[in-house]
Amino acid sequence: MKAVYFKDQSVSLVERPVPRIPEGEALIRVAMAGICNTDIELFRGYYGFEGIAGHEFVGVVEKAPAKPELEGKRVVGEINCGCGKCPRCLSGDPRHCPNRTTLGIKGRDGVFAEYTTLPLENLLLVGDTLKDEQAVFTELLAAALEVSRQVHITNNMKTAVLGDGKLGILCSVGLRHFNSQILLIGKHEEKLSIARNQGVRTFQVESSKDAKKVVEEFGQFDLVVEITGRPDGIGMALEMVRPEGTVVAKTTSHKPSEIDLAKVVVDEISIVGSRCGDFALAISFLENGWVDVLPMIEEIYSFSEFEKAFFRAMQPGAKKVLVRF
Amino acid sequence: MKAVYFKDQSVSLVERPVPRIPEGEALIRVAMAGICNTDIELFRGYYGFEGIAGHEFVGVVEKAPAKPELEGKRVVGEINCGCGKCPRCLSGDPRHCPNRTTLGIKGRDGVFAEYTTLPLENLLLVGDTLKDEQAVFTELLAAALEVSRQVHITNNMKTAVLGDGKLGILCSVGLRHFNSQILLIGKHEEKLSIARNQGVRTFQVESSKDAKKVVEEFGQFDLVVEITGRPDGIGMALEMVRPEGTVVAKTTSHKPSEIDLAKVVVDEISIVGSRCGDFALAISFLENGWVDVLPMIEEIYSFSEFEKAFFRAMQPGAKKVLVRF
Repeated sequence: MKAVYFKDQSVSLVERPVPRIPEGEALIRVAMAGICNTDIELFRGYYGFEGIAGHEFVGVVEKAPAKPELEGKRVVGEINCGCGKCPRCLSGDPRHCPNRTTLGIKGRDGVFAEYTTLPLENLLLVGDTLKDEQAVFTELLAAALEVSRQVHITNNMKTAVLGDGKLGILCSVGLRHFNSQILLIGKHEEKLSIARNQGVRTFQVESSKDAKKVVEEFGQFDLVVEITGRPDGIGMALEMVRPEGTVVAKTTSHKPSEIDLAKVVVDEISIVGSRCGDFALAISFLENGWVDVLPMIEEIYSFSEFEKAFFRAMQPGAKKVLVRF
Repeated sequence: MKAVYFKDQSVSLVERPVPRIPEGEALIRVAMAGICNTDIELFRGYYGFEGIAGHEFVGVVEKAPAKPELEGKRVVGEINCGCGKCPRCLSGDPRHCPNRTTLGIKGRDGVFAEYTTLPLENLLLVGDTLKDEQAVFTELLAAALEVSRQVHITNNMKTAVLGDGKLGILCSVGLRHFNSQILLIGKHEEKLSIARNQGVRTFQVESSKDAKKVVEEFGQFDLVVEITGRPDGIGMALEMVRPEGTVVAKTTSHKPSEIDLAKVVVDEISIVGSRCGDFALAISFLENGWVDVLPMIEEIYSFSEFEKAFFRAMQPGAKKVLVRF
């Protein structure tokens, strides 16, 4: 099969054998994949990654020896694969299994290839009403909605999403179902407008030093979701949150962040780290049309143009770049 | 009256007029005061403080024009004084009033003086069963117990307190009522033993880089209360906590802390800042004999020896230094 191999800050199209199917897993023919900022970080070598990356996908089950009725079905898949034996897995949470592998990120080849494998329990069926280019957003939308699992968001909480990247847009549009007045704050009018067209209030700032301007305009917030992708984003979020308020941190910067912990202590602020989310909830949002992801697509490339697609995704401000197989 | 004046890293005994009593406040004759690490930070000039410091005290109401029945009564006092008009105050939480003054810390002279004043609603009566040298710990114990208001601590949560300073000891002994197996981790056998003698499990480490040793010995914790007083304490706490666990931050360092936010995000950890607490709960703990504070006293000085007392309190590893008026 054809696959994309990441090594030493290069991506190359290589020929690889179709993966053998581990026990309890399925072989999946990838139909479409998305390029994520994490893939770009892997490419840049921050985590010493080498191999087949990619974790956002929709595909068709090619072979599922333990559950043949799945064959031919269109699926998306949870990216964390637990060991099945540790206390975290036994309590039903493989996302935090200390021995987990993660699709295209750690210990497991990803979806930038014609075929990939995943455990059967990771797979979720996709209804016919969803196009591939919608279903491929499941993982990202699940991560956005994860905030609603961690924090009990109610309509009387003054809530802001800080950062108008792909996850920030999805977060504001998705969480608007929990908080009708949610505010998306970002630098790019073009991106803010994607959320605004779906009913989200937006506010444009010029830099991450503009916290004062935001607070002057809106007062302090009960909840700030920080998705700037920058190490200093947390500082801006802490300036915007009220005493005893909550900052949800979603930026995974490879650099440590400098935090004024004295402010966190004196104002008794909570910082809640937030990562992957619930795929079933995300599919429900997509199938019900509660989030329109199509305006977030930058361009769809064919797999043979992967390198071009990848460098397009690396352009600052690029929206979601997709690859069709 | 005699008072201690902090200015430019000096303390001097000065003569000052007895304060006039603001409307709704009481004049209090200070009986005993405690020297807190915050006082030492004020002395060192971190907050540009100049004036009469001190906020840990027990005293006797000398004059209370709006509530004369309080006169002659022994009291302790909440240190945060709200404006009474802002939304925070109107919701019953002057501790986070943006316009608040804080006894001996901000905008209000403190208790290192023969007399001080506080709003009537800040005062709590102290029963005859408590000695001054117990009641003077109310503020510190309230701050320790604040963790139990912020986090729902249950007995099946593996809980550690990191740091065997005064607040760390009180935290471990106080929170043992919520979690019988709570573990106090610190460097000083003498201090650990104060908690151990009150039923707390203890573990001695050599440095704040010993997180690995702790985790090897005990596994990861559901809840870590960080009270090391050091900017790098939070890093050790984050290494000790399990995925989706909670770190309560109590260190108010004047230096920013470097935090690996990617770990907080990936492991979905919550960091909860924690400051002052509920005096009534602390008095109840003291009156019921649930916390023995007497072994925590380094020495009791007379007010005329304040300077000596203060420099004793500044010695690394000093326990609680008290001043009797």
